[in-house]
Amino acid sequence: MIDVAKRAGVGLGTVSRVVNGGAGVRDETASRVRVAIDELGFQRNEVARALRPGKKSSSLALVLGDLTNPFYATIAKASLEVAGQDGFAVVLGSVDEDPEGERRAIQELVGRQVAGLMIVPDQGDHSFLAGAGVPVVFVDRPAHGIEADIVMVDNEGGGKLATDHLLQQGHERIAILLAPSYYTTGRRLRGYRRACRAAGVEVDESLVIQLPEGTAEAAEKATRELMHRPDPPTALFASTNFLTEGVLRALREVTKQPGFGEPAVVGFDDFRLADMLPTPVTVVASDIAELGRIAARLLLDRASKSDTRPPQRIVLPCQLIQRGSGERSATGKAAGRSGG
Amino acid sequence: MIDVAKRAGVGLGTVSRVVNGGAGVRDETASRVRVAIDELGFQRNEVARALRPGKKSSSLALVLGDLTNPFYATIAKASLEVAGQDGFAVVLGSVDEDPEGERRAIQELVGRQVAGLMIVPDQGDHSFLAGAGVPVVFVDRPAHGIEADIVMVDNEGGGKLATDHLLQQGHERIAILLAPSYYTTGRRLRGYRRACRAAGVEVDESLVIQLPEGTAEAAEKATRELMHRPDPPTALFASTNFLTEGVLRALREVTKQPGFGEPAVVGFDDFRLADMLPTPVTVVASDIAELGRIAARLLLDRASKSDTRPPQRIVLPCQLIQRGSGERSATGKAAGRSGG
Repeated sequence: MIDVAKRAGVGLGTVSRVVNGGAGVRDETASRVRVAIDELGFQRNEVARALRPGKKSSSLALVLGDLTNPFYATIAKASLEVAGQDGFAVVLGSVDEDPEGERRAIQELVGRQVAGLMIVPDQGDHSFLAGAGVPVVFVDRPAHGIEADIVMVDNEGGGKLATDHLLQQGHERIAILLAPSYYTTGRRLRGYRRACRAAGVEVDESLVIQLPEGTAEAAEKATRELMHRPDPPTALFASTNFLTEGVLRALREVTKQPGFGEPAVVGFDDFRLADMLPTPVTVVASDIAELGRIAARLLLDRASKSDTRPPQRIVLPCQLIQRGSGERSATGKAAGRSGG
Repeated sequence: MIDVAKRAGVGLGTVSRVVNGGAGVRDETASRVRVAIDELGFQRNEVARALRPGKKSSSLALVLGDLTNPFYATIAKASLEVAGQDGFAVVLGSVDEDPEGERRAIQELVGRQVAGLMIVPDQGDHSFLAGAGVPVVFVDRPAHGIEADIVMVDNEGGGKLATDHLLQQGHERIAILLAPSYYTTGRRLRGYRRACRAAGVEVDESLVIQLPEGTAEAAEKATRELMHRPDPPTALFASTNFLTEGVLRALREVTKQPGFGEPAVVGFDDFRLADMLPTPVTVVASDIAELGRIAARLLLDRASKSDTRPPQRIVLPCQLIQRGSGERSATGKAAGRSGG
């Protein structure tokens, strides 16, 4: 509103009085303010909202993980766009895999009187949110202890899709790398098991790798160990984008050594430059921007009370993007140690 | 504060009264609230701040470009961390290359009474910020029309570093790709010119490419055209991370054709997987997280009035990271059309 005041050559207080009815403002001044508002292209109610001190909040809170993970950045970008269209700002809390930090971030944000909360929840109980007094939409993962809207991708279907694809190339020793006890990766594992069962392939439990943390480094280390076993897998399914990166880093080293073939690799979630790597990377992916857009739209509709349905569960489909790494057959080119 | 109330078995109003002196609250109840606050590990003033309706703002606004650009995501993450340490939330505005959108985002955020503004400014006049009444710190680029703190990288030095490196490999036909009229890329071009002048190499102005937009697609198209000229460059300097991606995409296609050698490539700004590409990518880079941390720290100190110095200009150094693409010599392997 600063520039309305500036353009009209009056103080902010005068702009405020004009917008709120014009009492005590000379007609000529009031008209100047109105012209300035028009010229600058503001809606009257935008101006009014910005000037009303006790205004109803027009901010949403968004709590998610590490913003330098493109998955979270994409959700943040999409929800900012949707919120912005309705004149809502977004207050951001970013906490990575730290339930206590997440809880405090949420409480801090609720204390700021936001109109609604959009949360990519960590593990643990979220029943404390029941008393927040504002609508809550969970994104990517459901939360425990509270009934609320959830927008997510078809993790189990995606896990099955990736595994089916590897099974179809003749792979029977398929390792799966999992980030620690996330809801999402648990579902992806379930899809993996379902695919193996349907194909009559018994799962070697030593190929189900629960990583201590969800980093590229952890996946790199685990993959190196896997490939140096006497009976290495012929295919790997990496259940997140960072894990896929770690798998590829390990394979780059391992397969340089004599006697090692290249296993097939499928990742969950697409990532930038996946198609530019020496062997372009096959992934199972869904539309993450759409995930963010749907969640933000739903939250705005809950906040405005234009959507009063019971808590919804919206699931977006996954698709397979074949680029090369997932199309190496188990027999065509032997993976793992080919000698000895 | 919801869980303080919950834990103590009282309403929010009671918590508020206890924190604000305890008038009208039974001793036993007040003590229960204080125990709950202690147990939950809150500082008394955090609780008080969250409950005071007319409280002084403890939010910072951050206005920057496309969050799915890792450059911006890294700045956002770093500033959230620093702000969080001081109990400040961050309200985010993300607007990509749209001066009018940026202006409105800033006005929206100022209307929300933030304690300070951290802005990666677009082009155009920012004098309207002089009346914002809160401290402003610019990040990555200075703004016109206002004296304020600026935290940036040594763009000119980085441009010179990249070009010097290519000149040292014997390259004399070095193309530079520039995003449209950014302050940063203008400075990088200046570094390029300085390096050429110092080496006694005359700049072929047809190799200074001003792109219509700062996307990978625009850089890809321009690179394809460059390489099909009768006298293609033997080296390319891509002045942003997205432009580097576009250059690499074009070269992947062009150099498949018979008679085309691979030119050397140096990019400005590091990016994820740069070291994993078929030819690992040499870049000039600075510590972008540090850029965000310094800016947020400075803004908090301005907001608390613990820093009352005149506007500061803080410049972070760039360094060259050699990975392969920038080390192809001009003579060792001919670039461009090698045949007739």
